[in-house]
Amino acid sequence: MRAVDIILKKRDGGRLERGEIGFFVDGVTAGSVPDYQASALLMAILCRGMSREETAWLTDAMVCSGVRVDLHDVPGVKVDKHSTGGVGDKTSLILAPLAAACGVPVPMMSGRGLGHTGGTLDKLESIPGFRVNLTVDEMKAALKRTGCAMLGQTAQLAPADKKLYALRDVTGTIESIPLITASIMSKKIAEGIDALVIDVKTGSGAFMKTEDDSRRLAESLVAIGNASGVRTEAVITSMDAPLGRAVGNALEVIECLEVLKGRGPADLTEVSMALTARMLLLGRVAADRADAEGRVREAVASGAGLDRFRRIIEGQGGDPRVADDYGRLPAAPHQHVVKAPRAGYVTRLDAELVGRASVALGAGRDRIDDAIDPGVGVVALAKPGDRVADGDPVLLLHYRTAGRLDAALPQASRAVVVGDAPPAPRPLILADVN
Amino acid sequence: MRAVDIILKKRDGGRLERGEIGFFVDGVTAGSVPDYQASALLMAILCRGMSREETAWLTDAMVCSGVRVDLHDVPGVKVDKHSTGGVGDKTSLILAPLAAACGVPVPMMSGRGLGHTGGTLDKLESIPGFRVNLTVDEMKAALKRTGCAMLGQTAQLAPADKKLYALRDVTGTIESIPLITASIMSKKIAEGIDALVIDVKTGSGAFMKTEDDSRRLAESLVAIGNASGVRTEAVITSMDAPLGRAVGNALEVIECLEVLKGRGPADLTEVSMALTARMLLLGRVAADRADAEGRVREAVASGAGLDRFRRIIEGQGGDPRVADDYGRLPAAPHQHVVKAPRAGYVTRLDAELVGRASVALGAGRDRIDDAIDPGVGVVALAKPGDRVADGDPVLLLHYRTAGRLDAALPQASRAVVVGDAPPAPRPLILADVN
Repeated sequence: MRAVDIILKKRDGGRLERGEIGFFVDGVTAGSVPDYQASALLMAILCRGMSREETAWLTDAMVCSGVRVDLHDVPGVKVDKHSTGGVGDKTSLILAPLAAACGVPVPMMSGRGLGHTGGTLDKLESIPGFRVNLTVDEMKAALKRTGCAMLGQTAQLAPADKKLYALRDVTGTIESIPLITASIMSKKIAEGIDALVIDVKTGSGAFMKTEDDSRRLAESLVAIGNASGVRTEAVITSMDAPLGRAVGNALEVIECLEVLKGRGPADLTEVSMALTARMLLLGRVAADRADAEGRVREAVASGAGLDRFRRIIEGQGGDPRVADDYGRLPAAPHQHVVKAPRAGYVTRLDAELVGRASVALGAGRDRIDDAIDPGVGVVALAKPGDRVADGDPVLLLHYRTAGRLDAALPQASRAVVVGDAPPAPRPLILADVN
Repeated sequence: MRAVDIILKKRDGGRLERGEIGFFVDGVTAGSVPDYQASALLMAILCRGMSREETAWLTDAMVCSGVRVDLHDVPGVKVDKHSTGGVGDKTSLILAPLAAACGVPVPMMSGRGLGHTGGTLDKLESIPGFRVNLTVDEMKAALKRTGCAMLGQTAQLAPADKKLYALRDVTGTIESIPLITASIMSKKIAEGIDALVIDVKTGSGAFMKTEDDSRRLAESLVAIGNASGVRTEAVITSMDAPLGRAVGNALEVIECLEVLKGRGPADLTEVSMALTARMLLLGRVAADRADAEGRVREAVASGAGLDRFRRIIEGQGGDPRVADDYGRLPAAPHQHVVKAPRAGYVTRLDAELVGRASVALGAGRDRIDDAIDPGVGVVALAKPGDRVADGDPVLLLHYRTAGRLDAALPQASRAVVVGDAPPAPRPLILADVN
């Protein structure tokens, strides 16, 4: 078999065989297929597409490039959540303790922020002492102890994805549904989970800008997950404005704690509750949607979710006192207010621009090895639909240096649009795909 | 400027700017754009296409990657011929001396055989002593002395093409009309010629299998040549069966000498005369097509063409006595006859299969560094349309070792198809594009 023949076949719109896909993925992992052939095939896949079957084979080959974690000795139906990424998208820190408190074991492997979206690991690490680099044994111990483990992906899981993703990033081959599907699902399948809820974000701050594309991606993810024995459901949720009010690592941890205390922003609370309810159903600890939602509400009202989060933090080396004393979290020394440019209604708070402003402040990274500042970020004081007077504060920028503030201000200012009439309300949860 | 942004633009069907194309070609030449980004862009170009304008910019950037030969001090309108490649396609060795004998200076830079098609340089080197690696000064001296120089491309001409072609070969990105156009025309424009005749082969033994594709390629080549100040015309000629009877280096040299002596195969003679006549018109040494054709016929009848070939050979270090004593050319020690499988008419003599059989005998190369055997090859004793009895000899395989013969026989046998009725005659010269 020759890599060039596989490229030619896909380039001409052909369907690849399982063996051809395996040859390619194994070759990339071992280094016997050079990068220039890999990138040519990735571009051919992006241009010509892949059938569901080819996507499943690609995913499977990427799973087989590494180890598949065996969680059979952890009792219960193990459920994880994955998000395609958004701005202020912090639901993991809310739903993991809530689902665990409701009896669902949650082995959650997350990523770091890249580009304008944030990452769960960065948020967790803003908690003093919190360790995310658990071994598989430590993950199992944490699952048995607190029903939840929150960690980074180990290098043994789907190493082919690591190589292919790095190559896609620099060769313009990210935006392909089959390639995105295989990248996400290979890592999730290798985790050893039984079921998965995927939050597919759609809108200006999301990777997929249109609901059509988001639906296609959701359908692909669900199909490949189920075909691999991981029961998978997707929820398409809106990402035109940041979710909640806080964007930035420690700022987002505080907001999550507020939601667990029952007093967080409505939009973040709604999405977190909806995703947790679906995890409870997949985890078979609730009879139906109403039962699941009731259990989640009760876990908030009773404080069981917050208490579980304290135990998770403590179990992974973090300081659980942050849950009650936010002063123990890192903070930026200065604040700057972005004001409403006129009176009226906030018609738009562009998620991507807020995300980019937050990165400019130091909360995120443009390159994978950039250092981040856990204390900085953006807080939205007004959200779309809110009425503002001329000069009312709309955004609060938490910053460390004047240089960083200057870099963030143009994007922060452009993010805010004030008009005469409130925008038409748009539902947050747009569709279930399963 | 970032290479990835250029890739993204082309991937999404956008038109690249001149500066973007220049950035890419310069980066490939200098090594600052890595191969994996180059191959991704090449695949995006193959899938999404390029406008005529983009193709012209690409060609120009590739010309500018190296030196452009200045032939102004050589008098006359300098005309070259290029062929897109076929089996038994040996017209260069006929038309170069004929055009030179008619007063057209011919600076001819050629390539080597690759895949199932042959190369002019390999054929010339089968003449004992013939040197093809001339410097630019030697080329000019030869042009002034004999009106013709036949040489390999120097490394200074369009070095970007050398890198890109090598990459295209292993990444499935050969078959793109804009990329083929830029590759061919950058080298031809850098030669310093005034005019160019392109023989675009079409059919089973050609690179372009359909006349439609061949026409599109011809139109692209002609447009880019003329836009760059090289008067360019194309002729689309049939390549379903080998041109002439001989395939293999020394065997083809003998056949060319026979054509120059006025007794070569009709098809080879017709195509060679037609291409030469067009060179005479572009070179402004003939008033019209009829005048040009008359001059070419006269150059054969008078022996002026053959005499010019002797002088070219001698001028480049070769033994001119081969023109009259074919025994001075290398020859294979053994012959094997492939017989007609039944009585009837030869309906097909598949050019690609004959070419592959010839490569298997050692006349060509699958990889650029394979050694070739100048004496071996295939001679067609019967051609499509010929009537044969059961067991009549159809192909004569000139071979050196039994192992090579065994490797060639299956393809040679499959190349011959005998049917009940003669095939419909198809013209050799299908269209002029100018």
